[in-house]
Amino acid sequence: MPKISNKGHQMPESPIRKLVPYSEIAKKNGNKVYHLNIGQPDIKTPEVALNAVKNADIKILEYSHSAGFDSYRTKLALSYQKIGLPINKEDIIITTGGSEALLFAMGSTIDAGEEIIIPEPFYANYNGFATASGVKVVPVISTIDTGFALPPISDFEKLITPKTKAILICNPGNPTGYLYSEEEIQQLAALVKKHDLFLIADEVYREFTYDGYKHYSIMDIAGIEENAIMIDSVSKRYSMCGARIGCIVSKNTEVMSTAMKFAQARLSPPTYEQIASEAALDTPQSYFDEVITEYKERRDTLIAELNKIPGVKVATPKGAFYCIAQLPVTDADHFAQWLLESYDYNKETVMVAPAAGFYSSPNVGKNEVRIAYVLKKEDLIKSVQILGEALKVYKN
Amino acid sequence: MPKISNKGHQMPESPIRKLVPYSEIAKKNGNKVYHLNIGQPDIKTPEVALNAVKNADIKILEYSHSAGFDSYRTKLALSYQKIGLPINKEDIIITTGGSEALLFAMGSTIDAGEEIIIPEPFYANYNGFATASGVKVVPVISTIDTGFALPPISDFEKLITPKTKAILICNPGNPTGYLYSEEEIQQLAALVKKHDLFLIADEVYREFTYDGYKHYSIMDIAGIEENAIMIDSVSKRYSMCGARIGCIVSKNTEVMSTAMKFAQARLSPPTYEQIASEAALDTPQSYFDEVITEYKERRDTLIAELNKIPGVKVATPKGAFYCIAQLPVTDADHFAQWLLESYDYNKETVMVAPAAGFYSSPNVGKNEVRIAYVLKKEDLIKSVQILGEALKVYKN
Repeated sequence: MPKISNKGHQMPESPIRKLVPYSEIAKKNGNKVYHLNIGQPDIKTPEVALNAVKNADIKILEYSHSAGFDSYRTKLALSYQKIGLPINKEDIIITTGGSEALLFAMGSTIDAGEEIIIPEPFYANYNGFATASGVKVVPVISTIDTGFALPPISDFEKLITPKTKAILICNPGNPTGYLYSEEEIQQLAALVKKHDLFLIADEVYREFTYDGYKHYSIMDIAGIEENAIMIDSVSKRYSMCGARIGCIVSKNTEVMSTAMKFAQARLSPPTYEQIASEAALDTPQSYFDEVITEYKERRDTLIAELNKIPGVKVATPKGAFYCIAQLPVTDADHFAQWLLESYDYNKETVMVAPAAGFYSSPNVGKNEVRIAYVLKKEDLIKSVQILGEALKVYKN
Repeated sequence: MPKISNKGHQMPESPIRKLVPYSEIAKKNGNKVYHLNIGQPDIKTPEVALNAVKNADIKILEYSHSAGFDSYRTKLALSYQKIGLPINKEDIIITTGGSEALLFAMGSTIDAGEEIIIPEPFYANYNGFATASGVKVVPVISTIDTGFALPPISDFEKLITPKTKAILICNPGNPTGYLYSEEEIQQLAALVKKHDLFLIADEVYREFTYDGYKHYSIMDIAGIEENAIMIDSVSKRYSMCGARIGCIVSKNTEVMSTAMKFAQARLSPPTYEQIASEAALDTPQSYFDEVITEYKERRDTLIAELNKIPGVKVATPKGAFYCIAQLPVTDADHFAQWLLESYDYNKETVMVAPAAGFYSSPNVGKNEVRIAYVLKKEDLIKSVQILGEALKVYKN
């Protein structure tokens, strides 16, 4: 029998999805499961996007350009310019989700055996994309005590070797909800400039900032035009996760012509979803205002409720819609599985994502979980109540 | 300025798309361009697929399951069973095009530095996926003199090393149009069984066979269940290239659980196109009958016309909708560019794909082009006439 690849063995299992079989058990046991584990918003997709697909007059569902519709790239560039980012059509390749944009970014800049530094905890699938690309992830630890702020630049410098090719950040952060300040972004800019590294920024949660905090894009920092690669996606912005439309953005023409070769190999991004994504650019501002207000209230509710549970520690997120919570357990993985398999509170239970899968360092974050506040407030209150009751009876 | 990756330098440019800038020049010069270069059919997408999207009642465009809609996988498995292939839902992961299925197949079975043997000429993007995966392509040459039949098994055996992990075939073949016989498939099966290799078969043109020839799937060969990985796609079957929906199929549970980890990392395939693809399974047989009849007539027309041109040699394709034609030129790449840049016949010209990009061996196929017969017969006749007139005046 032929053997699978070592790469295949090394591919991490998604920490968000690996408990799915246990959620099936919970459902079979007749329990309702509140999903705090996955960033699938319950927010409606803008009608302008859905209607564009309904009204599309397609007779032949043809390949599109490998870089995506020209009309979409043009309009998308304008939308970036409107928020002050100097991005032109030529700086954009439309991708199949932010996922593919990350694969193109890694493939275009980092060879097998070379290294990328990522502040952890980080979006778990970065591990998957790095493994698929043969790239070594070098984590730099951020901690709950600083609210997951940028680690000191000296911590990065200690990790830089001749094999280091890039630094990857997620801003605002999944799973931390941390929003980097302008000062932190400037520090990173100086660092990549000094060491001739790429700075890849996953900015898919750009709009989701709270308490008046402003998002600083790496595309807005003068002097790192050749270093900066931005990853974007429509998934969360328009509650269009199923569209699988994102983009890779850079002013570095060599990076873009290289990414284009990866894009040509896979021919084109999906057509209907490009139609939806292009139309979504006409979403009225009121949609976002409502959504952000709703998420802010959810965040406030979630954090307030979590803080009521003895032994739970949580850093208040400034952006995105996740937080990392430290629980009074030794193994959050076991606890999360137990919640689904063996626990219910009035026939209800919760599903959370064990945070260890968001760290690359072994044995870090074992007592932490990621909670996505994508459910309505009543459900969040119920969910945290269940969590509190469960912690009372759970035996480590 | 940070440097791009070596992998990025090595990524091949698409031979199908690299002449696009010259086709722009042709159009600027006021010339009509007949596109024989790209496999974008002019056949209408089945209405049942387009209507399913129009009528889809979506409020939130959510992530789907990483393996694709359960309902789609179930129905797809049934459709395979109907044509005699023993494929169950569990053997299928829905992918973003056949492209992603190939990436998952390579990633799951072959490590960086290991080898895959592919009969050449082959679908050019295999080179791109191999480069992206760090996999070394080892070509085994098939020739126009045998109509691009399977090379002798001894030719394969000469190339097998401890690093060889898989053999990849495309059946029916893009760009050759060759359809492997049952005997050839059995020979390959015995070979992979003997050497413990994977056999990856790209069968996306399965329905496109002519003259009563029957397609033999690797999924129908007893004894290689652990070796066989089938790649499929809706692109050509339903003229839905823009859907970017395909699948990877295998009875090897280790391969499938590994491919699933790659699938989870990118979350899910696009939603609307899964709706279209699931509905497309209800396409009436009359649609395919008409399409195959049309392609057969196009093939007959194309081959008859090409054979009229002095110095042109062509192998009659038995399947798919491509052929390789040998031209009386020394550099088909230069000729193809010249056709667009500097030639017209009554303000019309043709775009063909130089075949060198479909070979991995250097300096092979330099006098060959790939022609896709995806245009209506009148246009094919005109195109070949233009080609013939051009060859009269072209100076090598």
